[in-house]
Amino acid sequence: MTQALSAGASTPAFDRADPRAVRRAIRAGAFTDFTNHVARDFMQGNLVAVPAAYAEDFEAYCRANAQALPILGRSEPGVRAIPALADDLDIARDTGGYMVFRDGELVETPRDASAVWADDLVAFVLGCSFSFEAILQRAGVRLRHLDEGNVSAMYETARETTPVGPFGGKLIVSMRVLSPADAIRATLLSARYPQFHGAPVSLGLPGDLGIADLSHSYGGHGLTTLNPGELPVFWACGATGQNAVRNARLPLCITHHKAHMVVTDLPLPKD
Amino acid sequence: MTQALSAGASTPAFDRADPRAVRRAIRAGAFTDFTNHVARDFMQGNLVAVPAAYAEDFEAYCRANAQALPILGRSEPGVRAIPALADDLDIARDTGGYMVFRDGELVETPRDASAVWADDLVAFVLGCSFSFEAILQRAGVRLRHLDEGNVSAMYETARETTPVGPFGGKLIVSMRVLSPADAIRATLLSARYPQFHGAPVSLGLPGDLGIADLSHSYGGHGLTTLNPGELPVFWACGATGQNAVRNARLPLCITHHKAHMVVTDLPLPKD
Repeated sequence: MTQALSAGASTPAFDRADPRAVRRAIRAGAFTDFTNHVARDFMQGNLVAVPAAYAEDFEAYCRANAQALPILGRSEPGVRAIPALADDLDIARDTGGYMVFRDGELVETPRDASAVWADDLVAFVLGCSFSFEAILQRAGVRLRHLDEGNVSAMYETARETTPVGPFGGKLIVSMRVLSPADAIRATLLSARYPQFHGAPVSLGLPGDLGIADLSHSYGGHGLTTLNPGELPVFWACGATGQNAVRNARLPLCITHHKAHMVVTDLPLPKD
Repeated sequence: MTQALSAGASTPAFDRADPRAVRRAIRAGAFTDFTNHVARDFMQGNLVAVPAAYAEDFEAYCRANAQALPILGRSEPGVRAIPALADDLDIARDTGGYMVFRDGELVETPRDASAVWADDLVAFVLGCSFSFEAILQRAGVRLRHLDEGNVSAMYETARETTPVGPFGGKLIVSMRVLSPADAIRATLLSARYPQFHGAPVSLGLPGDLGIADLSHSYGGHGLTTLNPGELPVFWACGATGQNAVRNARLPLCITHHKAHMVVTDLPLPKD
């Protein structure tokens, strides 16, 4: 696999298809890449950890905006294990990068969050489009951003999410460039997986979501250029949760960083 | 209903929702409009009648191109009844307009085809997008061409159908202008009905199908203009069958004319 070769030159050998091996390599600092090319038969998730006092409101916010924020798992307050996702998971160490927000400001981006993890944090793991990307590729849909070793671009839209308590803000979407036939196939396939954002929310016309310029992605990364014969297709994105907790200016909040996702042992649906 | 009012000023009263009443009105010459606004809870179909010597090849051609040509019913040679579609159906009289081709040339467009119907003709009734339009509207998808009292536009594409015997030629598509959200919903809904052409074959980019200019529709009718915020969405169309029999230059062939479809007693799926 060219992807494994290009990413792995300086990384000790481990089984990149095995989620437990990937987590172990991340925890040991031996794997520091984005996770969209590893453990592809297993679900990955967004991480949002909030103080216990905000956990019920955040869960209600997720359920009110379930297309963006499908809940795969939730920890007990102060507990770093989420056995429903993986029996050896340490949510403060097994993600390849973290963002730490205090009062809504990003204060650090550690590789390991155990030093800043607080006793009352509740971690939420939210479904991620990396999971449906694997399903789309298996079905023969061409995802050019992956072929080019990139990630999908994200955008802040003009659409408001349904607010709950202190949580609200704009819907964030991920975008993939697809041929019309693949846009149709990707729509039909992704609709079957509400746990990974379901069907697209828009396609074809960035202005429909209030996106003025595809070249200005949220976070500044990802494939943003259309080739002739390609359409932009937009899915609700878990980054909507990061955006909401940042807007809420919580005293402390920890999320994953960029495309370093929580790698679980939950197998993707086979069909 | 504004549609019934605008169409019906000079038409005697009959139950426009009842397929049997619609057929009776057509047979009596009392209803001469397009059928996309009547009997909307029942399947409608394209008509293609070919000499018996060509019927097996035409059926195989339909099966090889089933997204465009889903077979709803087929008559016995020389028999004008198709009881599986409606127990009183006279296929030579109950369609509001016919095209008669001899050696591939259109020779007449009678309102009643019984005078030209030949003893060896086999009639095929093929699924029609009017059926899924009713389903889309029921689900709240806005079909602007219907709101404007128009029909969907059709286009000849650059895509070749799979040829069988003397039958072949380009895929014909129908086009509807939809918002991105409705394009997604229409894709998901129509995919559930392969008997009415299933999912779209393309969307967003007319050039993907080799369509250079949306304003030049096949047959010259239908809504061809995009408003801001609208996408063109393309479905395989039963007119592909008319095109194929014309190309085959059969000694005789009879089809329906424009949007005058075969109105059946088969109820649309409820879901």
